[in-house]
Amino acid sequence: MAVYTDFSDEELERFLSGYDLGAVQSLKGIAEGVENSNYLLVTEAGQFILTLYEKRVDPADLPFFLGLMDHLAARGLNCPTPVHNRQGEALGRLADRPTAIITFLNGISVRRPRPDQCGAVGRSLAELHRAAEGFALTRRNALSVESWRPLYEACEGRADEVSAGLGREIESELDYLEAHWPRDLPSGVIHADLFPDNVFFLDKRLSGLIDFYFACNDMLAYDAAVCLNAWCFEADTSLNITKARALLTGYASVRPFTPGEIEALPLLARGAALRFLLTRLYDWLTVPEGALVVPKDPSEYYRRLRFHRGVADASAYGLDL
Amino acid sequence: MAVYTDFSDEELERFLSGYDLGAVQSLKGIAEGVENSNYLLVTEAGQFILTLYEKRVDPADLPFFLGLMDHLAARGLNCPTPVHNRQGEALGRLADRPTAIITFLNGISVRRPRPDQCGAVGRSLAELHRAAEGFALTRRNALSVESWRPLYEACEGRADEVSAGLGREIESELDYLEAHWPRDLPSGVIHADLFPDNVFFLDKRLSGLIDFYFACNDMLAYDAAVCLNAWCFEADTSLNITKARALLTGYASVRPFTPGEIEALPLLARGAALRFLLTRLYDWLTVPEGALVVPKDPSEYYRRLRFHRGVADASAYGLDL
Repeated sequence: MAVYTDFSDEELERFLSGYDLGAVQSLKGIAEGVENSNYLLVTEAGQFILTLYEKRVDPADLPFFLGLMDHLAARGLNCPTPVHNRQGEALGRLADRPTAIITFLNGISVRRPRPDQCGAVGRSLAELHRAAEGFALTRRNALSVESWRPLYEACEGRADEVSAGLGREIESELDYLEAHWPRDLPSGVIHADLFPDNVFFLDKRLSGLIDFYFACNDMLAYDAAVCLNAWCFEADTSLNITKARALLTGYASVRPFTPGEIEALPLLARGAALRFLLTRLYDWLTVPEGALVVPKDPSEYYRRLRFHRGVADASAYGLDL
Repeated sequence: MAVYTDFSDEELERFLSGYDLGAVQSLKGIAEGVENSNYLLVTEAGQFILTLYEKRVDPADLPFFLGLMDHLAARGLNCPTPVHNRQGEALGRLADRPTAIITFLNGISVRRPRPDQCGAVGRSLAELHRAAEGFALTRRNALSVESWRPLYEACEGRADEVSAGLGREIESELDYLEAHWPRDLPSGVIHADLFPDNVFFLDKRLSGLIDFYFACNDMLAYDAAVCLNAWCFEADTSLNITKARALLTGYASVRPFTPGEIEALPLLARGAALRFLLTRLYDWLTVPEGALVVPKDPSEYYRRLRFHRGVADASAYGLDL
């Protein structure tokens, strides 16, 4: 849950006067996105999301994120897009923060995805990868393999507070992944955080993707591995192979995997599991005592990591090899 | 900011199947109300607030709150009303909590009220008091004079952690108010929490009142005293007499104060200040170390209390006596 930046009536009025959105009808802080302050803004022109970018977002990345949404939408992907003000700018300032108004996307996220929804996500992810081709800006993945060891070191040897022996296992995993991480797979713009929270459904059908604030350039199949972890494990942390098959074959129906991608999938899934294990571990260890926001359990991703380490090849995910 | 109760897709679907609201178009947790979980729900039928009542609300009070909204709206007050399901019920259950769907009210709350807005609030408060006449249910004010000493005692002598000497001042104020609290002023249903958060404006005009979850039966002029404290003091805690005059004369233009009410106003304002001082003090002292939700500063209300103690009569609030 986000902490909200507040602003005065006059500040809001001044900010909105640069846009052609008519009079404000309502404004409510919403609990969406942990990085930024988000408000649902209703004006005579319709519903919008007003986003104030907080300090965890680098302002230098904003043209990439906002430009990507415009690029993807222009290529037919259903995603929010920034509203441009009368000067043609997608980004302004409110309460001394970079601020954008983003179009509103109908739909609700699912809490417990069904196999057909996993298939729809796979297809939509591949459509995103296709639609992103030709996007002029690039952004390196700040949470890829090079960043994992520094992130682990920032946890100052406290991993065993979560689970005995976890520190040792992370260290050996880091050694292995740093030595074997693939470098030559097809790359492009990836979403990098396509969890169920960020996918909307409407009337049983996928209606759009949101939250592009982790998007970056990296291996496309890594994005599928992130989704595999996020969508296809059950609450008891066992893989649901029906969901995995649906997600991966859904993806491949739009953009077929290369043989190299299929071979690398278990390794990419290990890396994707470690990436979320490490960020959750860091958040878990650094959350203030007694805070009302409960950080996500890192051990869910530890169990995924262990699962992928036991996998011989992508047939374990339901793919026909 | 509220902590949100989450629920499964199936639970929501089952809950909504009892209502005639059409298909869901979006659902977002909103940061409104600290006592309950609130979602903005958009369906084919329009925008609604979905409220799950959390443990700080006594379920036995819900028929009063929901019935009051129906009663007030039927008498012409602009306030949200519960949507009744096909069985005609305003209250259901979701995620094992009493849950209601409430109509959506357009408008935004002001952060820094202007005098004309204070006048509008005064008029609207009196309209609420008039409109509530004849409401069949009653609810005693659980935060009136009888509850103040127990609330202070729950702070276990720690008031001086906020400000040196505060404990002693509260004790002497309790003694005085318990001995002099008026008993014979006109009573009825009061809002009891009409802060700027709970009043919406649209295009410079007051568009409605929300959040009736502290409403109860008590002295009508006490409600005006709560508003005086909430709307008419500046950030430096000085009274803005222009705003106070606007609020009180606005009120009196709809429902004239009795001579007894005008005489009691400084005392009621002291009591209203003490009530919010005590609840804020309690929250301040009991908030978990390092919590992300910053409790409101109790000393703002200590300064209001001191101001009202120095007041000879209601002319200090801009009323002509």
